[in-house]
Amino acid sequence: MKTNVERIQKDIEILSQFNATPGRGLTRFSFTEEDRGAREYIKSEMKACGLQVYEDAAGTVIGRLEGEVKGAPTIIVGSHFDSVKNGGNFDGPAGVVMGLEIARSIYENKITTKYPIEFIAMIEEEGGRFGSGLFGSRAMVGKVSREQLDQFKDNEGISIAEAMEAFGLDPNKIQEAARRPEEIKAFFELHIEQGPILEHNKKDVGIVEYIVAINHIEVVVKGRPDHAGTTPMSMRIDALDSATKVISKISAIAKEAGEGTVATVGVLDVSPGATNIVPGEARFTVDIRSKKQECIEKVVKSIEKALKETAKDNKITYTITEKLSVSPIKLDEKIIETFDKNVKKLGFSKESMLSGAGHDAMIMAGITRVGLVFVPSKDGRSHCPEEWTEYKDLQKGIELMYHTILDEAVDVENEG
Amino acid sequence: MKTNVERIQKDIEILSQFNATPGRGLTRFSFTEEDRGAREYIKSEMKACGLQVYEDAAGTVIGRLEGEVKGAPTIIVGSHFDSVKNGGNFDGPAGVVMGLEIARSIYENKITTKYPIEFIAMIEEEGGRFGSGLFGSRAMVGKVSREQLDQFKDNEGISIAEAMEAFGLDPNKIQEAARRPEEIKAFFELHIEQGPILEHNKKDVGIVEYIVAINHIEVVVKGRPDHAGTTPMSMRIDALDSATKVISKISAIAKEAGEGTVATVGVLDVSPGATNIVPGEARFTVDIRSKKQECIEKVVKSIEKALKETAKDNKITYTITEKLSVSPIKLDEKIIETFDKNVKKLGFSKESMLSGAGHDAMIMAGITRVGLVFVPSKDGRSHCPEEWTEYKDLQKGIELMYHTILDEAVDVENEG
Repeated sequence: MKTNVERIQKDIEILSQFNATPGRGLTRFSFTEEDRGAREYIKSEMKACGLQVYEDAAGTVIGRLEGEVKGAPTIIVGSHFDSVKNGGNFDGPAGVVMGLEIARSIYENKITTKYPIEFIAMIEEEGGRFGSGLFGSRAMVGKVSREQLDQFKDNEGISIAEAMEAFGLDPNKIQEAARRPEEIKAFFELHIEQGPILEHNKKDVGIVEYIVAINHIEVVVKGRPDHAGTTPMSMRIDALDSATKVISKISAIAKEAGEGTVATVGVLDVSPGATNIVPGEARFTVDIRSKKQECIEKVVKSIEKALKETAKDNKITYTITEKLSVSPIKLDEKIIETFDKNVKKLGFSKESMLSGAGHDAMIMAGITRVGLVFVPSKDGRSHCPEEWTEYKDLQKGIELMYHTILDEAVDVENEG
Repeated sequence: MKTNVERIQKDIEILSQFNATPGRGLTRFSFTEEDRGAREYIKSEMKACGLQVYEDAAGTVIGRLEGEVKGAPTIIVGSHFDSVKNGGNFDGPAGVVMGLEIARSIYENKITTKYPIEFIAMIEEEGGRFGSGLFGSRAMVGKVSREQLDQFKDNEGISIAEAMEAFGLDPNKIQEAARRPEEIKAFFELHIEQGPILEHNKKDVGIVEYIVAINHIEVVVKGRPDHAGTTPMSMRIDALDSATKVISKISAIAKEAGEGTVATVGVLDVSPGATNIVPGEARFTVDIRSKKQECIEKVVKSIEKALKETAKDNKITYTITEKLSVSPIKLDEKIIETFDKNVKKLGFSKESMLSGAGHDAMIMAGITRVGLVFVPSKDGRSHCPEEWTEYKDLQKGIELMYHTILDEAVDVENEG
């Protein structure tokens, strides 16, 4: 292995100390004291291996390694180092540490590359403080406006702009964080899986082929509120009874759609919501994800069909409203090929995967070729104190990235 | 007919004017200006037909007609005249007006009875102001303590005791409202059905045979909260998916239990309750009512069985907790026979019914023989401005009561 597991462990452990909620998981919001501490550590590690270190206008830490070819597009490598409230030590930092360890390994091995490489550490990916997630990557692709910096506020009413100023950043320069597509060759991110598949299938790394399409629909079922004691079963129009007859079928509907399609009813509100009143209304959301848009459409149609049948049997009425629709993203095939080649070379086992969550990679895919690798999450847990990845497992992902990024950085053929 | 539909209509219409929310249904809370206005009308009508009028220590209006037999137990007749917030004109007053019209008809026809009759109008049956329902009847059976008058408070923090004092009643005398069982011969109540059965079956009156047993159970289903995007369908332990597989069967389970058994899931809470998180917990209530305890037990057992099967298939765990258990009350058979006889005599049609709700009759059944008659509710609606009973339908119920109460009041054989 060209990378060093002790250094990886040390990075994760040191970063974990910059934490607003010790003993109750990791909480590191953006533009805070904890952000500052972690940021200074990252910068010092970058400087120690000869990178040219600066921050972009959104507060993303960048450590640049120049390449041999003058004016060549850059390879960007990294992830984010903010966290959710009471989260874990790996969601975000795993990918930042990946960048640090690769920079150190390149430095140590005195490797020169044709293309420049920028190792980056982004913030506010989780939206934990301001509710405006994927902030660093969105700024990098020019999708954060000056106005948004005033609009999004934290729990204490402090806007992003105010927090940036207090942190020493000029919100009026936010557009300067935007990168032109032609100056970027590719973006590489490593992230913990946040799901159980790698662990369950005993695979070392996950090579992400698609970031899934996401649809959110809201279903409102209307019946008639009646007294629970005085209305015979045969004379009811029970909105919840009908809603459950549909919801109970959704897991089978998702499985039937195939291609790893998932569907989740996470919210269900009943009104009036009293023990002794037959529900007059039931409102629920369905979160549907798939690598194929047509699978999502199949799920929505099956839910509609189930509602229609229930409406016929039980006299309820219903509405279906689309609340969110995000298209699937196919990641770069050539990068996936290089990942696959290096997996073999290194003797690792791999799983070809979907990314069911967004990640900064999804945003970066809007302007450049993207490669995304997952490492195993213990028990599939994430966004909680129990979030865990074995350091040797994290190292394997980093090692794969090291070889793949070097292939990308030395091979002029890969350009564009 | 011995009763007069115009007088019945006039009573209902006048009482409807003592209303805190004109235009938004009827709101008449206890110990308020609206209570005072309605109360004075009731008292004046009682006095006009020679009743001896007073109020008991709980504020129940009583108009007493002496009987021929000295010291004989009394027949009590009536219902309540308070309302829920934004309710209708009939829930409560229909039974009070029944008493007034019977008193007037007896007076008009110069009838003397062997047993005394007390026409009564109770308050706070709904618990609309203080959340302490069935107040008048509970006081009458000695089940309201002095302490409770301090404990229960309205939205403005005024206790029952304070409201009573402001109204001119002495809360320290509350126990004087209690009646001894031996001084009561029977209690007769007329109430609107608050359900759709009489209208649907085109029946004039409902003769209540049982006040149903009520069980409230709470079911908590525990699964595992997972990310909706990163957790394959086959690796989830979705609490809501499992809960809906059970809830969707409950209507069939209730129908199967027979005997008019009803079961209602009125409350369902999902946690964490986010669109993109697989539910880790689902909590729901089941309100089960039946005239037979064994039917309720059958429903609970079937729900348990469905939970057990789901737990086996889906790895969830669950708990079932009994929150309320009220035994069924069989109403007086001899009174029911007399109702039936008079229904035939009057040429009415009747439905033998369960009372799915409580009513003051349920409380009075604790100390005396009880007869309860329902009149039709338009569209089964109640506790809303649309609550309606045709005056000619109300009259039929009152006419039936008139004959039955006279049978009870003149026939010494019925005693005890």
